[in-house]
Amino acid sequence: MTTNVAVIGATGYTGQELVEILSKHKKVKIKYLTSRVEVPTPYSTMFPRFKNIVDVACCEFDISHALKKADVFFLSLPHTVSTEFVAGILGEGKKVIDLSADYRLDKTIYEKWYKTEHKDPIGLKKAVYGLPEINREKIKDAELIANPGCYPTSVLLGLLPAVKKKIITQDIIIDSKSGVSGAGRKAALELSYCEVNENFKAYKINDHQHMPEMEKILKEIDKKEHNITFVPHLLPLNRGILSTMYLKVSEGLREDDIISLYQRFYEKEPFVRVLDKGKVPQLKDVVNTNYCDIGISYKNNMLVIVSCIDNLVKGAAGQAVQNMNIMLGFDEQEGLK
Amino acid sequence: MTTNVAVIGATGYTGQELVEILSKHKKVKIKYLTSRVEVPTPYSTMFPRFKNIVDVACCEFDISHALKKADVFFLSLPHTVSTEFVAGILGEGKKVIDLSADYRLDKTIYEKWYKTEHKDPIGLKKAVYGLPEINREKIKDAELIANPGCYPTSVLLGLLPAVKKKIITQDIIIDSKSGVSGAGRKAALELSYCEVNENFKAYKINDHQHMPEMEKILKEIDKKEHNITFVPHLLPLNRGILSTMYLKVSEGLREDDIISLYQRFYEKEPFVRVLDKGKVPQLKDVVNTNYCDIGISYKNNMLVIVSCIDNLVKGAAGQAVQNMNIMLGFDEQEGLK
Amino acid sequence: MTTNVAVIGATGYTGQELVEILSKHKKVKIKYLTSRVEVPTPYSTMFPRFKNIVDVACCEFDISHALKKADVFFLSLPHTVSTEFVAGILGEGKKVIDLSADYRLDKTIYEKWYKTEHKDPIGLKKAVYGLPEINREKIKDAELIANPGCYPTSVLLGLLPAVKKKIITQDIIIDSKSGVSGAGRKAALELSYCEVNENFKAYKINDHQHMPEMEKILKEIDKKEHNITFVPHLLPLNRGILSTMYLKVSEGLREDDIISLYQRFYEKEPFVRVLDKGKVPQLKDVVNTNYCDIGISYKNNMLVIVSCIDNLVKGAAGQAVQNMNIMLGFDEQEGLK
Amino acid sequence: MTTNVAVIGATGYTGQELVEILSKHKKVKIKYLTSRVEVPTPYSTMFPRFKNIVDVACCEFDISHALKKADVFFLSLPHTVSTEFVAGILGEGKKVIDLSADYRLDKTIYEKWYKTEHKDPIGLKKAVYGLPEINREKIKDAELIANPGCYPTSVLLGLLPAVKKKIITQDIIIDSKSGVSGAGRKAALELSYCEVNENFKAYKINDHQHMPEMEKILKEIDKKEHNITFVPHLLPLNRGILSTMYLKVSEGLREDDIISLYQRFYEKEPFVRVLDKGKVPQLKDVVNTNYCDIGISYKNNMLVIVSCIDNLVKGAAGQAVQNMNIMLGFDEQEGLK
Repeated sequence: MTTNVAVIGATGYTGQELVEILSKHKKVKIKYLTSRVEVPTPYSTMFPRFKNIVDVACCEFDISHALKKADVFFLSLPHTVSTEFVAGILGEGKKVIDLSADYRLDKTIYEKWYKTEHKDPIGLKKAVYGLPEINREKIKDAELIANPGCYPTSVLLGLLPAVKKKIITQDIIIDSKSGVSGAGRKAALELSYCEVNENFKAYKINDHQHMPEMEKILKEIDKKEHNITFVPHLLPLNRGILSTMYLKVSEGLREDDIISLYQRFYEKEPFVRVLDKGKVPQLKDVVNTNYCDIGISYKNNMLVIVSCIDNLVKGAAGQAVQNMNIMLGFDEQEGLK
Repeated sequence: MTTNVAVIGATGYTGQELVEILSKHKKVKIKYLTSRVEVPTPYSTMFPRFKNIVDVACCEFDISHALKKADVFFLSLPHTVSTEFVAGILGEGKKVIDLSADYRLDKTIYEKWYKTEHKDPIGLKKAVYGLPEINREKIKDAELIANPGCYPTSVLLGLLPAVKKKIITQDIIIDSKSGVSGAGRKAALELSYCEVNENFKAYKINDHQHMPEMEKILKEIDKKEHNITFVPHLLPLNRGILSTMYLKVSEGLREDDIISLYQRFYEKEPFVRVLDKGKVPQLKDVVNTNYCDIGISYKNNMLVIVSCIDNLVKGAAGQAVQNMNIMLGFDEQEGLK
Repeated sequence: MTTNVAVIGATGYTGQELVEILSKHKKVKIKYLTSRVEVPTPYSTMFPRFKNIVDVACCEFDISHALKKADVFFLSLPHTVSTEFVAGILGEGKKVIDLSADYRLDKTIYEKWYKTEHKDPIGLKKAVYGLPEINREKIKDAELIANPGCYPTSVLLGLLPAVKKKIITQDIIIDSKSGVSGAGRKAALELSYCEVNENFKAYKINDHQHMPEMEKILKEIDKKEHNITFVPHLLPLNRGILSTMYLKVSEGLREDDIISLYQRFYEKEPFVRVLDKGKVPQLKDVVNTNYCDIGISYKNNMLVIVSCIDNLVKGAAGQAVQNMNIMLGFDEQEGLK
Repeated sequence: MTTNVAVIGATGYTGQELVEILSKHKKVKIKYLTSRVEVPTPYSTMFPRFKNIVDVACCEFDISHALKKADVFFLSLPHTVSTEFVAGILGEGKKVIDLSADYRLDKTIYEKWYKTEHKDPIGLKKAVYGLPEINREKIKDAELIANPGCYPTSVLLGLLPAVKKKIITQDIIIDSKSGVSGAGRKAALELSYCEVNENFKAYKINDHQHMPEMEKILKEIDKKEHNITFVPHLLPLNRGILSTMYLKVSEGLREDDIISLYQRFYEKEPFVRVLDKGKVPQLKDVVNTNYCDIGISYKNNMLVIVSCIDNLVKGAAGQAVQNMNIMLGFDEQEGLK
């Protein structure tokens, strides 16, 4: 018995990655793919990479048609669009994994950052934040998952054990670097090859829309406000986020103890690997995988955490499938090994 | 005494390269820069690289204003736009170097490839094709230069001695590879970083608009039609064109003789370097220079010519300045060393 | 029941790719990995990407130890090394897939190109050239496979239908472009990042060691000598080979007929995809897959074939596993989908 | 009248950049180039980019020969080598600009980090640290310049006004990212294309040999020890360093005041550009120039300084020429515009 799934918004980089992962997943079948297209077109015509692999047509999204086709819906849509459809899908007893920011923030914070009214406050209350390392039990019973953002995934997994253990004494400084696919698939001068290649820059210093998501989840973890400074940078490569985090911590800790704290914390997690002392993670060890690799260095009360993920996998599509696996009772690693 | 120059279309990659070269040129002064802008903006605000270097305002093109500002006009405009302005500029006794294809082709061929009527047939007759290695004497007296295309520059310089010597016996096969700046500066999905990076492809096989330019000039050289097969490819790098050309040649030639033919042909040319036997040119030796490097290999009557240029310099802006230097009697290498 | 396999030479790029593919293969188990190491080291310590995935130790090759561990041996060794071990492995009734050039050429040709005596002429006679699209039946019964080179795979698959159909009338011109992993994993100035990045060049013009392999196999196909001109180029990207081939063909053919010839020829092949008219293949559609994509363009008796593969997959490790699947009677696509 | 100059160690990336800049400098002539070569070889044979531009032979370094050829010596040698030659050159009344770390640190700190005795303690006392923005007056009279390291140049220029103004209240956190040329030109597996491309990593966390240089100069500026946390990262691009620095500063400051402090501080500096409020610097605006661009952002007492240079120009060869210009009384910008 396989479960029928739909990807709404299947032509962005996240959408393509969802199709890639789901096409290899043994328990599901891709039944419905959508995008803004004039006429339904085989997915493999749009993306020849999928020739002989995924030949389902990609068509314009039609909710009534969609509901007949699938039982699990991945929504990979621009921000604010998902809120129009979620209630309708949940109403039919189907499950939704939303990859936008629409169900990740409190209503007021969302409206401040996205400058628009949130259209589905009821859905917002039902949504479970889909970071399995925090919320696995809630995910099992969820009908609507707010799949985490890419930057927050890399940052939160790097901070989680330290925050839970309450060893951080001052502001949290986060210096993140992301590959270009994180900006989405679109025609934009600033994303064109010659603008990005052989270049590197910071952007949206302390002004990135993923900041309130980090702040919200950090506060949920230890019931405390954390001041964070967040500077994202654009790397000239396709995939991957590496976040370097600087934390002043309590007196008297030893590097070995902190590494051991992290390793114990994550020892049963299938997709988080804490490196041994002296080892530093790198993007190429996690690209095209659902792993988050974490390295730890400590000196003079300053803890340096380096965390790496593939922004399209653990930072988006892979984590979405991990969430589906948990929701449906599949092996959590199915399709992700 | 310096000459006042204008760059019409100063924000594309070719326009920026013109500004870069002209800003270092000892005999000219940049007086007028244009682009589609709402309000005049310092060029260095648009491109911070030029801060403290070029602070002229970039404004919307206005012909009457322009004519007061400069005596030499570089037109770096989309195809078909130049034909609206050239007559007006020439009428005032000013000189024009046009970097579009508008003055490179015969009227009928132009209209077939660009699918539009040519609006300035009189200008077309005046225009001199600005490849100094062929037309230096004519350039000296020209008022209007049709600056060669980037692919044709790399190809024609590679073929010229062999064509003049009439040693080619069959079709000419041209396998060219260009960096991404050759496609211009624009928002386009197919030029976005993740589409181009770690990718390589052929495009417009035997259907590229630079083919008729090559055919026309080749025919002018030896009064003979040449069948050419032209396959351009898109390289994942910013700058440079490398063309590999395959020519069946007359029986009885020796590699040394052909290399020597090429070296003698170009020995007085300041910007063409023919490599010694066994040496193969590479892009990084010509990038950011006005040089064309040529390597020659020969076996079993098959001549393999490899030719390299920087598409924005010898393939566009540098060659345009070289043409200006010739027209105005400056040292041909001024600004280009 | 799973088959135990060994990878001899597991730390090069091809070796790593073999480990990656074999670790996901449902019918085999990796039991033995070797490299030049001083002490046995977990493979995942050497390559953290494999942490929690492949924890077998990587040790110095020891033939007697090896024979106890595995029944199928992948040899991914520098040229000339395999010939010392193959007889010993075959003598125990085990199977060998050799990824070097050692079993691909006739003895005299091999000795001319590799400038050394071939030490295993008996093995050479037993070896089957492992291009399934030509030799599937022979592979089924083989004990020793000479796995094809990366350039020859891309070239032969592109030429095969035309050569079989005997429509080529003149020399074959092959302009190939390869990513850097094709040069192997090693400390070498000319492969260092700053030498390759933003650069492009031709190398070994008509002097590449893969030429005699192409010539030999082409001759076996239609019992005819073919003159080939082969110019490889180095692309600034990690993976992929794109070969553009220029063929003069018999009068009177039509583009549709040639495309249809190719599509029929390959219609049952699981890993060759012939594109429809007007479509041009690109590396990113085949990278990380075992596919070869082929595009066809035709004009004035000149056929232009563009063929793309991932040099580490269909050009090496993937094809090796495809050969193993055929030899052992597994589903030919197992581990490669 | 031109001054004769020598580049000792002319084949590394810094050496090549020195030759490039000096070949365009109007007041000097390159008379002597050295490297480890078996026979003297024209520089343009080793680097075809310089064909027809620099044809001086590159030979093995011979001090007595060298002293006859030039009056200013640029030493671009591996660490510890310069100390063998400096005294001999200075003894003849010549000037030296040393680009290694050999004359940048106090003797004890040098010996701790480089694990070798310093062989020229007398030279060490004479050496002037060649950051013109701090030491212009001393440079004018210097006979020996210790040219700053690339990371320290980017970091110190970003910190200088804040340190001088004594507004920093806590540890200084420096997150730097460097292009690959910073690691030098050599055969090394970890610098090979496929290891670096599409990868990103931190390295030598709080353990980089440029840390003591930063600490020493910072202390000289305000007579105070500064705790610094320094994490360098390796960017997949050829040239450029971007340092993001995080500073807790005194209460009550406003962003405008800090930007204005920086702009006034650097207003007469020819090669430091402080960006206006809201602007963020990027590598491509400084690559191939001698500029350092600085952007400033401030929030909640946390100052974020982003500083960009080309590591081979302002971070090495360009700064060395700037120092020479100051020493010899030339226009400080000669050769660097």
